[in-house]
Amino acid sequence: MKIIDGGVTAPKGFSAAGTEAFIKYENRPDMAMLFSKEPCIVAGTFTSNVVKAAPVIWDAKIVKETGTARAAVVNTGIANAGTGKQGMDICKAEAAEAAKALGIKKEEVLVGSTGVIGEQLNTEKLKSGIRALAGKLSDSRQAATEASIAIMTTDTVNKEAAATFEIGDKTVTVGGMSKGSGMIHPNMCTMLGYITTDLNIDRSLLQKALSEDVKDTFNMITVDGDTSTNDTLLLFANGLAGNEKITAEDENYKKFCEALHYVNETLAKKMAGDGEGATKLVEVLVTGASTKDEAKILARSVAGSNLTKAAMYGNDSNFGRILCALGYSGVDFDPDRVDISYESEGKSIRIFSGGIKADYDEAEATKILDHKEVRIIADMHMGEAKATAWGCDLTYDYVKINADYRS
Amino acid sequence: MKIIDGGVTAPKGFSAAGTEAFIKYENRPDMAMLFSKEPCIVAGTFTSNVVKAAPVIWDAKIVKETGTARAAVVNTGIANAGTGKQGMDICKAEAAEAAKALGIKKEEVLVGSTGVIGEQLNTEKLKSGIRALAGKLSDSRQAATEASIAIMTTDTVNKEAAATFEIGDKTVTVGGMSKGSGMIHPNMCTMLGYITTDLNIDRSLLQKALSEDVKDTFNMITVDGDTSTNDTLLLFANGLAGNEKITAEDENYKKFCEALHYVNETLAKKMAGDGEGATKLVEVLVTGASTKDEAKILARSVAGSNLTKAAMYGNDSNFGRILCALGYSGVDFDPDRVDISYESEGKSIRIFSGGIKADYDEAEATKILDHKEVRIIADMHMGEAKATAWGCDLTYDYVKINADYRS
Repeated sequence: MKIIDGGVTAPKGFSAAGTEAFIKYENRPDMAMLFSKEPCIVAGTFTSNVVKAAPVIWDAKIVKETGTARAAVVNTGIANAGTGKQGMDICKAEAAEAAKALGIKKEEVLVGSTGVIGEQLNTEKLKSGIRALAGKLSDSRQAATEASIAIMTTDTVNKEAAATFEIGDKTVTVGGMSKGSGMIHPNMCTMLGYITTDLNIDRSLLQKALSEDVKDTFNMITVDGDTSTNDTLLLFANGLAGNEKITAEDENYKKFCEALHYVNETLAKKMAGDGEGATKLVEVLVTGASTKDEAKILARSVAGSNLTKAAMYGNDSNFGRILCALGYSGVDFDPDRVDISYESEGKSIRIFSGGIKADYDEAEATKILDHKEVRIIADMHMGEAKATAWGCDLTYDYVKINADYRS
Repeated sequence: MKIIDGGVTAPKGFSAAGTEAFIKYENRPDMAMLFSKEPCIVAGTFTSNVVKAAPVIWDAKIVKETGTARAAVVNTGIANAGTGKQGMDICKAEAAEAAKALGIKKEEVLVGSTGVIGEQLNTEKLKSGIRALAGKLSDSRQAATEASIAIMTTDTVNKEAAATFEIGDKTVTVGGMSKGSGMIHPNMCTMLGYITTDLNIDRSLLQKALSEDVKDTFNMITVDGDTSTNDTLLLFANGLAGNEKITAEDENYKKFCEALHYVNETLAKKMAGDGEGATKLVEVLVTGASTKDEAKILARSVAGSNLTKAAMYGNDSNFGRILCALGYSGVDFDPDRVDISYESEGKSIRIFSGGIKADYDEAEATKILDHKEVRIIADMHMGEAKATAWGCDLTYDYVKINADYRS
């Protein structure tokens, strides 16, 4: 696998665009389009929230029933969730308009929305946005970036990643973009994410690769414990790499999974580090757990603890918060056997061991915590399983962003 | 039942005191004592956290094994959690010192600690604090208040409640105090709480009354989702009211449960409204749920949602956050049938109905939210069950308090 600079247009045959459609705000791009010149098979994972936005219902039906698509249209500003029958009608009109502009069927258009819940979208604005996007589509590097910028909401940076790998003499590429900053929590991909690849692969294997990888990537990030109504991750494969079709979990399938994992993990970490108001990415590595599932539960409990997150913001080596979050996770363990350390830029410091505070220098711990990327390591000394979760610190700005989000 | 002004000294035979023992901070009372001149039976509920503080282990053993006690000693500043064998030795020394000062056995002394995790208590400071407290014990109204002030940490107000009821010609009194502000979350009483009564009752019924009532009171409040290592709620009954002993779940038992519920609910609501940095108490009432358990899960999900809490701080009528929190609670329901309203000071406004935003005035909604006590009502239209949870808003000050709690 080779990491490359790129986004959703990196694989062959994919074009993208972003534009300003004045959906809710001015002076910011707020609509994006993704298009494949050849038909794609498509895999997807969606929010576990009982309340599902109209576009989630539309997309999930297509992924389940035909599993094929050629385009995606996304708007920000309004989520088209809690919008009843009218919201679903708008969603269909959006797909129809895109189909007309692109010369494809409306059932080949996937729709994504993110923003305020409960407000209705203006169909005319959407339609003129779609027409503008169709006219701007390009397979350039820049077009991918413009699309990734157009799907941002409270994100402070756009999020892209890409990688390639070889199957025989064919180069296969995987590219992706995502948005997500608040309403980020394990239990679905918790964001909008679009992954493209020119791989030729069986549809059920494409879905399997995505569903499996999400468990270790997008489902292991947490910003605030709130699982959104709109979470959508879509993976398009158009086969243009020209490889012999993958139909079994063979070596080539594994190569694809590796590249997909790189793209997913990179996007997931970018989302966690860009949590609303966050000043740092906090990685939580749990080792020595009895099972992988328990390792995940423990890691997510620490990454999701408001008290731990606030302490991280203050560079406060308050390991009690970490011990406490491990303790209420629901996993049983012996506190006297747990080791807790901090790590950043290759330096690490043990702060808790043998049931008591380790003999360490507070100033040194504070220095290690004072970085843009910090790792908390908890060794449970119960078994061999491990897992990583990603989160961020909790800051004044998180509150500011969310105290009056709608104005 | 009659609500009275009072605290832990309201029932006959109980005395209390608070003092400054310089445990960790200066210029604040940081130790409290509670004493009954007659032996008590005692009931308790404790943290569900796997990591249990030394005093929790000590108290839980006494409650389980003998179920009798006469005194409680509490310190703030240091939690005596994550302190290993040394922490347990300190806990025992504390009980022994109190026993000596009060002329009782050390197994009759319950111990409570709250504060920073992982630091060791200074035994000499504790001992001199205990001697001072024993000398100050009083059954006055003022002494109860002093004790309730001495157990505060980041609390901004002390928390007391009391009620009386009649059994024949005997008046029975229930009084209580509690502390708790951060690290508050359902799944145990999430705080330190001390309830006293002069009721004469069978020990197993005393425990049953407490265990049952906690489910609807202390376990229904949430500040930040972090369940502490030290949560302890103790209920002392010394029998001095002189009533015929309650040995069955009869009318008199029910009267006691009613008074206990009043005291518990009052303390629980005071704790939720005094959440770290909070500006308001947020009550979440879920009605029309299929089962009581589902109603509780839904109510707690909304009360615990960071995004809902931040919106409450901004008086922002962002019902999408509420709908979303209901949706990820884990309970299945039909979003199109849910009604959501806000209520304060007798005025209410419906903001979501029939799957879409209700036709309401934003300014009016903001006005209703701009109060010290606000209620969110969600009618699920699925059945007859209902539940109430209590929380608070999420503010800049929560982050400030917790970003550098230890300094």
